[in-house]
Amino acid sequence: MAVYTDINEVELKDFLQAYDAGTLLSFKGIAEGVENSNFLLHTDRFPLILTLYEKRVDENDLPFYLGLMQHLAERGISCPLPLPRSDGALYGELCGRPAALISFLEGMWLRKSEAKHCRELGAALARMHIAGHDFDIRRENALSLKGWVDLWDKSAARADEVQPGLENEITDELALLEDRWPVDLPEGVIHADLFPDNVFFIGDELSGLIDFYFACNDFLAYDLAICLNAWCFEKDGAFNVTKARALIEGYQSVRPLNAAEIEALPLLARGSALRFFLTRLYDWLTTPEGALVVKKDPLEYLRYLRFHRSVKSAGEYGLS
Amino acid sequence: MAVYTDINEVELKDFLQAYDAGTLLSFKGIAEGVENSNFLLHTDRFPLILTLYEKRVDENDLPFYLGLMQHLAERGISCPLPLPRSDGALYGELCGRPAALISFLEGMWLRKSEAKHCRELGAALARMHIAGHDFDIRRENALSLKGWVDLWDKSAARADEVQPGLENEITDELALLEDRWPVDLPEGVIHADLFPDNVFFIGDELSGLIDFYFACNDFLAYDLAICLNAWCFEKDGAFNVTKARALIEGYQSVRPLNAAEIEALPLLARGSALRFFLTRLYDWLTTPEGALVVKKDPLEYLRYLRFHRSVKSAGEYGLS
Repeated sequence: MAVYTDINEVELKDFLQAYDAGTLLSFKGIAEGVENSNFLLHTDRFPLILTLYEKRVDENDLPFYLGLMQHLAERGISCPLPLPRSDGALYGELCGRPAALISFLEGMWLRKSEAKHCRELGAALARMHIAGHDFDIRRENALSLKGWVDLWDKSAARADEVQPGLENEITDELALLEDRWPVDLPEGVIHADLFPDNVFFIGDELSGLIDFYFACNDFLAYDLAICLNAWCFEKDGAFNVTKARALIEGYQSVRPLNAAEIEALPLLARGSALRFFLTRLYDWLTTPEGALVVKKDPLEYLRYLRFHRSVKSAGEYGLS
Repeated sequence: MAVYTDINEVELKDFLQAYDAGTLLSFKGIAEGVENSNFLLHTDRFPLILTLYEKRVDENDLPFYLGLMQHLAERGISCPLPLPRSDGALYGELCGRPAALISFLEGMWLRKSEAKHCRELGAALARMHIAGHDFDIRRENALSLKGWVDLWDKSAARADEVQPGLENEITDELALLEDRWPVDLPEGVIHADLFPDNVFFIGDELSGLIDFYFACNDFLAYDLAICLNAWCFEKDGAFNVTKARALIEGYQSVRPLNAAEIEALPLLARGSALRFFLTRLYDWLTTPEGALVVKKDPLEYLRYLRFHRSVKSAGEYGLS
């Protein structure tokens, strides 16, 4: 929850000159997103989200993120649609920061999801993968194998502060994943961060996907593995195989997995668990006490990682 | 800026059962207000503000605050209108806190106001005073003379930490105000906190007054004196007499001040400056370092107080 940059109506009206967005009636900072500053604008025509990109987002990646949202929305995926400026650009500058106007998407994220929601999610994810197929900008996944090694190099020496034995366990895990990581699975644009707070529902119906600021090119099945971690563990740490089955069935109802993807799923889930473990561990070790950000427990993802290590085949995720 | 209480869609839908507000489509925490938690809701019928009252607001005062907004809105004052529940109550309970649904008011507060805005403000303030005349709930001003003495008792011993000589200066000031404070000026419901961030404009037109959570019964001219302090000093500390004249002329175009009010204006302005000095001083001395709240400088209001002390008559505020 954050508004990092405050804006005033004079600067905002000036910024809006470049858009055909109507007359500004109100704007309010909203307490969502931890990477950027977000405002809800009302004009006499429609509500809009104004996003100011703070330093954790690389401006060079904005054509990918914003272009992808436009590409997906044009293909019927319900996601935020950037409003182009009169000169065609998808973002401008406000208060010295890159800033974009984006359509307001109705819906709420589920604090308590059920299997039926996971089924909806799986189908929406597969539709997104298919719609992203012909998007022509590429962005490497900075948080795949190479990124994990970099993060681990910065954290390994202090890992045993968090739990004794961690340094050896994760070093071994990383070596195994480097050795066995797949090389020939179907690739494409993935969301890479499809946690519950990035999926909106109205009632039980999925109304949209948001926050494409980790999207990149990678194995499509890796995106599904991220959702297995983000959606299918209960608060007590138990893996809910009913949700996992619904998620995968929903996905396959739109895009069937091939044999190699199915075989790789447990390994992809280990990698995905390691990825979130490593970023959380790094933040845990480097975020000062008393900072405004809520630190997330890395050990949650260590438990998920250990679970997937025990999985012998994708059948244990409910695949029939 | 704050959202103190997080809510989820299950609790919120349950809360909305008691209202005829349509189907919930989205809700977002907004970064406004320092006393309460505020959310912007969209239903299929209209946008709404949901306010959860945190502990600094006394639940016993809610019938006054919410009833006043309803009373004023019914008399044509543009202010947030509480949506009554089906049982007629103006607030319910959500997450263990009193909570109200209030109409969304379009408009933006001015970061840079001009004399013409002060004129609009003066007229709106006078209209509010007249509309509040027959409101039948009373609330004493907890931050008048008696409240100032209480605050000063808690801060006096440490005041010289902020500026040497303050203890003597404020003790003398308080004694003088206790001695000379008016007793027979026209009274009524005052807003008591009409700073720029509580006054919305669309373009140059005043679109509404918000945040009635300091409203109370007191001298009407005291409300005008609060606005003199809140609107008519420039960032460098200079008193802008053009703004003051416009503010008072705007007020008198709707409700002319009587001779006693005009004579009392410099003293009321001293009292008002002291009131904000004392609350800021208390917060300054008691808010822990590193707290989320931005501490406001009490010395700003000491300078205002000293200015008003030098004023011989209301003519110096631009009154003709």
